[in-house]
Amino acid sequence: MNTTNINSPTLLLNKEQVLKNIETMAIKAKKHHLIFRPHFKTHQSAEIGNWFKDVGVDKITVSSVGMANYFAHAGWKDITIAFPLNVRELNDIENLAKKIKLNVLINSLETMQYMVKNGTQNIGYFIKIDTGYHRAGILAENVEQIQQIIETAEQNKNLYFKGFLAHFGHTYHANNQSDILKIFETGRTKLANLKEHFIHQYPNMLISIGDTPSCTLANNFSGIDEIRPGNLVFFDLMQSSIGVCHEKDIAVAVVCPVVDKYPERGEVLIYGGAVHFSKEYIFNKQRNKIFGKIAQLSQNGWTEMETKIYLSSLSQEHGVIKAPKSFINSLKIGDLLAVLPVHSCLTANLLKEYLLLDGEKIKMWRNC
Amino acid sequence: MNTTNINSPTLLLNKEQVLKNIETMAIKAKKHHLIFRPHFKTHQSAEIGNWFKDVGVDKITVSSVGMANYFAHAGWKDITIAFPLNVRELNDIENLAKKIKLNVLINSLETMQYMVKNGTQNIGYFIKIDTGYHRAGILAENVEQIQQIIETAEQNKNLYFKGFLAHFGHTYHANNQSDILKIFETGRTKLANLKEHFIHQYPNMLISIGDTPSCTLANNFSGIDEIRPGNLVFFDLMQSSIGVCHEKDIAVAVVCPVVDKYPERGEVLIYGGAVHFSKEYIFNKQRNKIFGKIAQLSQNGWTEMETKIYLSSLSQEHGVIKAPKSFINSLKIGDLLAVLPVHSCLTANLLKEYLLLDGEKIKMWRNC
Repeated sequence: MNTTNINSPTLLLNKEQVLKNIETMAIKAKKHHLIFRPHFKTHQSAEIGNWFKDVGVDKITVSSVGMANYFAHAGWKDITIAFPLNVRELNDIENLAKKIKLNVLINSLETMQYMVKNGTQNIGYFIKIDTGYHRAGILAENVEQIQQIIETAEQNKNLYFKGFLAHFGHTYHANNQSDILKIFETGRTKLANLKEHFIHQYPNMLISIGDTPSCTLANNFSGIDEIRPGNLVFFDLMQSSIGVCHEKDIAVAVVCPVVDKYPERGEVLIYGGAVHFSKEYIFNKQRNKIFGKIAQLSQNGWTEMETKIYLSSLSQEHGVIKAPKSFINSLKIGDLLAVLPVHSCLTANLLKEYLLLDGEKIKMWRNC
Repeated sequence: MNTTNINSPTLLLNKEQVLKNIETMAIKAKKHHLIFRPHFKTHQSAEIGNWFKDVGVDKITVSSVGMANYFAHAGWKDITIAFPLNVRELNDIENLAKKIKLNVLINSLETMQYMVKNGTQNIGYFIKIDTGYHRAGILAENVEQIQQIIETAEQNKNLYFKGFLAHFGHTYHANNQSDILKIFETGRTKLANLKEHFIHQYPNMLISIGDTPSCTLANNFSGIDEIRPGNLVFFDLMQSSIGVCHEKDIAVAVVCPVVDKYPERGEVLIYGGAVHFSKEYIFNKQRNKIFGKIAQLSQNGWTEMETKIYLSSLSQEHGVIKAPKSFINSLKIGDLLAVLPVHSCLTANLLKEYLLLDGEKIKMWRNC
């Protein structure tokens, strides 16, 4: 790999690993007879989106109306905006619904009443179900309220019921695989019960779930029809720290120049800060905050180091790395280090451009 | 203020307050005979940069080579890049130095040796001094190493010594005004001693300090020649929480639509997440993480609320607000709330556009 032209924080992408990650999930979806509707908020790139087409994906998930427009423009014809319908954007949503098959999320009777009154375009809706994450949605137990929303929707013939959608986001805060599977199983059971209750009335309804941890680790998808994992395309340290992937599965790294060295206090200063990584962190066993882990650049991208060297703090443009003295003394100012990000979605969102190992550059949404 | 067209997270800017904040600091600099070289990494906008010209500012600070180019293009002729010189960017730095008066930061003998060998353009350099923050720079006590760097530089006639530069970044982690002033005074004393040591040899040398907390609160600048505060232009909750400003001095707020309400658990869901705010937080007295504080939109921008209502968690696009039931019940889905950011620099960097109270829009660097 030629790194001569890398002079500032640069998001390196291992395409081969991305294709592997996509294929693994596509095979799993097929095996379990699940619709694979990947979430594109992680990569936000039309070109990377195209890589999913090779495994037969023709439906996607996004997290905003703007992102939906971007991917519709890139040729996607069936998009779910997996964010509570923002009534202030109804005009933009309807303009898009004129062009493609668009699904939205309904979180409340109040929003549905607004839609019934104002909706003029054919739009599919999922009802957002809260199975225990308690961020958004209607509690799975609240069957009456769910029924009321569906019945209200029937007053407007433009709206059609797609099913129930949930995101087991609390799997991200789990400590290990077993905890993730418990969260998944609780959620799956609640959704399967809901399905049993409604399927006779609405035989075409779907149960859609999100979150990369569940979709990666679970093996009993009974009652589930669709999965929407997003992070799997790249993975990151958050995922590897809870047992969802290995560090070798992580497909992105931020290449950062060394700008100073402090062997006496075991620190290296890099060009790479909160405007490149965001400020998400995990803890190591000693309860130190970890903002990234360091890898060595190699012929084929990067390789893990035996000693665990990590990004210990971030300010706007600076990053501080904790490292053994021997490693620090082996570095020259101007050397490049690869940093595995804690949260690849937020890192990609900030860097807005990918550099492939062969030198090709890929732009993202909102990058001029 | 007309909010009809605000449909997604929007960075509202109170220009009158910005002008007040700038003027206050300009008057203080004048009173203490200090060069006011504001840091533009907070606002990153050519237009807001122009507002500083009205108080006589003609020198600025930036945090990256790209940002220096952007502001040079906008007409600024004297720029300090307050980030350790990244030797990999020397080519870009020298191209810029052909056009304007450019100052860089030297952190080590190794970097200076590189510059001596490779520097071909007239460039001013500050030596970065560490007075206790321990992020970057040479310890103030290390007089011999400092002397060695200056002597090494003399081998290349393109390089001229500007003085010593420090950033008391640990003031951001202080708990109150008194702690900030202690940090400042320790740093000031160390720099004043260094100056006394070198001034006879280098009578034109300057002592330059950064950080909004010190520049705002300190009153004895003896030995200091230049200040580079940046955050003061907007302030934020981090600054108000440590006593540097009042919440009413904060000049930016993110306007976010309400997308759902959960009165039973005291929460409101807004469209506004980590891709709008970043993930910086402060703690309240009860040790809850605060990602923003809520204000009410009003005729002239926004006004604080009596009850302290705050943003308690962020995911990529979602924000969760903790609020009393009575407040939640007064809201309708689709209402707009103003959120005072914890760290205005990172928030502005993500939103990339300002909306003034009169409806005018201002673009930032890297916004197409």
